[in-house]
Amino acid sequence: MRAERFLRACRREPVDCTPVWLMRQAGRYMPEYMAIRSKHSFLTMCKTPELAAEITLQPVNRLGVDAAILFADILLPLEGMGIGLEFAKDEGPVIRNPVRGQADVDRLRVIEPEEDTPYVLEAIRLVRRELDGKVPLIGFAGAPFTLASYVIEGGGSKSYLRCKRLMWEDPRAWHGLMEKLAETTVRYLKAQVAAGAQAVQVFDSWVGALGPDDYEQYVLPHSRHVIEGLRETGVPVIHFANNASTLLDLVKRAGGDVIGLDWRIDIGEARARLGAGVAVQGNLDPTALFAPLPVIEEKVKRILDRAGPTGHIFNLGHGIHKETPVEHAVALVEMVHEHSRRPSPVGV
Amino acid sequence: MRAERFLRACRREPVDCTPVWLMRQAGRYMPEYMAIRSKHSFLTMCKTPELAAEITLQPVNRLGVDAAILFADILLPLEGMGIGLEFAKDEGPVIRNPVRGQADVDRLRVIEPEEDTPYVLEAIRLVRRELDGKVPLIGFAGAPFTLASYVIEGGGSKSYLRCKRLMWEDPRAWHGLMEKLAETTVRYLKAQVAAGAQAVQVFDSWVGALGPDDYEQYVLPHSRHVIEGLRETGVPVIHFANNASTLLDLVKRAGGDVIGLDWRIDIGEARARLGAGVAVQGNLDPTALFAPLPVIEEKVKRILDRAGPTGHIFNLGHGIHKETPVEHAVALVEMVHEHSRRPSPVGV
Repeated sequence: MRAERFLRACRREPVDCTPVWLMRQAGRYMPEYMAIRSKHSFLTMCKTPELAAEITLQPVNRLGVDAAILFADILLPLEGMGIGLEFAKDEGPVIRNPVRGQADVDRLRVIEPEEDTPYVLEAIRLVRRELDGKVPLIGFAGAPFTLASYVIEGGGSKSYLRCKRLMWEDPRAWHGLMEKLAETTVRYLKAQVAAGAQAVQVFDSWVGALGPDDYEQYVLPHSRHVIEGLRETGVPVIHFANNASTLLDLVKRAGGDVIGLDWRIDIGEARARLGAGVAVQGNLDPTALFAPLPVIEEKVKRILDRAGPTGHIFNLGHGIHKETPVEHAVALVEMVHEHSRRPSPVGV
Repeated sequence: MRAERFLRACRREPVDCTPVWLMRQAGRYMPEYMAIRSKHSFLTMCKTPELAAEITLQPVNRLGVDAAILFADILLPLEGMGIGLEFAKDEGPVIRNPVRGQADVDRLRVIEPEEDTPYVLEAIRLVRRELDGKVPLIGFAGAPFTLASYVIEGGGSKSYLRCKRLMWEDPRAWHGLMEKLAETTVRYLKAQVAAGAQAVQVFDSWVGALGPDDYEQYVLPHSRHVIEGLRETGVPVIHFANNASTLLDLVKRAGGDVIGLDWRIDIGEARARLGAGVAVQGNLDPTALFAPLPVIEEKVKRILDRAGPTGHIFNLGHGIHKETPVEHAVALVEMVHEHSRRPSPVGV
C-alpha cells in the first residue's frame, strides 16, 4: 500500500491512509545530509547523480514518507539558458548576469535537458532503480514567476521591486522572459518524467508577492503553459503557489491535478473553494514541528478532519526548517498514518 | 470637504470623493524627512515632540492626503513595560532583554502613557494645533501579536520560531504576555485619543505568519480586547492584519470599524466576505508606485471600481517603500480624488 498511496491520492482515489511527504525533506535538518554537505559544495551535491540520489533516499528510509522527491534546486535549469548561477556561502543563490531588459531576454536559450541537465536525469534513473517501487519519485521545477524573480533580482528579494518594475515597464520583455522560462520548464519536467519521475511539482515559491490582477495578467498564462504542456506525460502535476491562498481561484485556473496549500488557510475552506475536481496537498505550519508532540498531534488531526479522506496528500505548508528535530518529523509521519487509517478501500 | 472625508468614510457615510492616505507616509522616501533624519537619530525624532510633529505634517502638505498619521514607532510603549529598545543602524529594532518565559513576563509592567510616553501625547497635541482642522489625525499602535513577536524574537524575524514556540510550549506565559501587551495598548491608544487623535489604527504587521487555528486561539482574544477597550472613546478603529487575508473572517471577529487590506486580495471579494457592517482600507501594492503613471492609474481605477463609493479609504496595502518617487505618491493622491469624484452627497 505504501507504494500506491501517494499516486492514488493525486488521482483522488480511495487510500488505506493519507499519504505524507515533506517539502525539502532531503535537507539540512538531517544529520545524514549534513555529513555529505560537510564534504561537498551544494552545487556539487546537485550535479553528482550518486550524491543527489543518496540524499533523495535518506528521508524515505528515515522518515517513512510515502514519496521521494528528487534532491535538486529549482535554479539548475537556468545555467543552460545562459544564466551564471552561484551559491554563495550562507547567502543563497547569486546570479551574476541578471536579466534587466529585452536584450538580456533575447540572449537566453531554451534548454535541452539531456544536454544541459544530464546529471538531474541520471539522478532520477539512479533513484528509481534504488527505490525499486517502494515509493514513487516526484520530480520538480520552479514556476516561471519564481524563476523570473531570481533571474531579474539576481538572487532573493523582499520587495521584488526590480521584478515588478520589468513587468509593468516593459511587458514585452517580461512576457518574452516568462515564455522562455515556461518552455524551459516544460522540457525540463518532460525529461524528468521520461527519466522516471512519477509525478511532478511546480513550485511558485514567491508568487505571493503579487495581487490578483498582476497574477492573472503576467503569470497565469505562463504557469498554465507549463502545466498544460505536461498533460501528455500522464503524470500528476502538483501546483504549489506559496503564500497565495487569496489567489486560489486563479491558481486553479492555471492548472494542476493537485493544488499545494501553505498553512495560512483552513484546508477545508480551501477544498470548498477549489471544488471536487482537484486534490490538495498541505498544510501544516512547518514551524509546528518544533512544538511539543501533543500540539503537533492536535494540528495533524484537525488537518486530516477538514481535508477529508480522499484527494489529500499531507505535507507541510512550506519547506521543512533546517533546525527541525528529526524525531518530530518521524513522529509526524506516524501520526498522519495512524490518524487517517481506514478500512481497506473498495478495489484495493 | 477634505477635513471630513476620512472620518465619514470610516463611518460608511457618503463622501465627495474617496479619501486617501498612505501607510508610513511620513518617512524615508521624502527629502524633507531625510533632511531631519540626517541630523537626529530615529529615537530622538520619535521622542522630540516638535520633530515628530513636523515630520507628521510633511506629507499632509506635500501629498495632499486626507489624514495625518502620527510619526512614531509601534515599539515605543515597550520601553515603559521594562523592555530595552534600540534602533541599531540599518538593522531595525533590537531588544536586548527579550522575553523567553514566564519569569520575563512577570517582570513586565503595564504602562502609564502620561508618564511613559509623554512625548507621543505632546506630539499629538502639537500636530492637532498645527493642523487646525485641515485633516484629521490618526494615532496608532502595534497589535499584541506583532509586539509579542518583537519582544520574544528580540527584533525582526523570518520564521517567528521563538515566538511560536513560546505560544505552543508555554501557553500560560504566552497569554500572560499578550494580556500585558493588550492592556498597555488599550491605555496607550486611549491616551492618544485623549490627546487629540481622531481615529486609531492597530497594526498587526506580522500576524500573517499564523494559520487560522493559531490566530483564533492565541491572538484573536487579545486583539479583540484592545479593540473593545477602545469603544468608549468613540473614535473609529482601523484594524490592519497584514498578509492575513485568508483570516479575514477571524480578523473581523476581532473587531474594527475599518478593516485594512493588503494587496494580495481583490478588494471587492474582501468586501463581500466582510459584509456591509465594516469599512475597508487599502489596497494598492506599494511597489506599484514605482510603475509608470498609466499603470498606477489603471490600478487605482480598478480598486475604486471594486471597492465602491462608500466605506472605502484608499491606501497602500503596506507601508510606502523608501525609494518611492515622491511625485508618484503625489500623483496617486490626485488620481484617487479625480477618479472617485461624485456629485455632492446627501447631507453634505
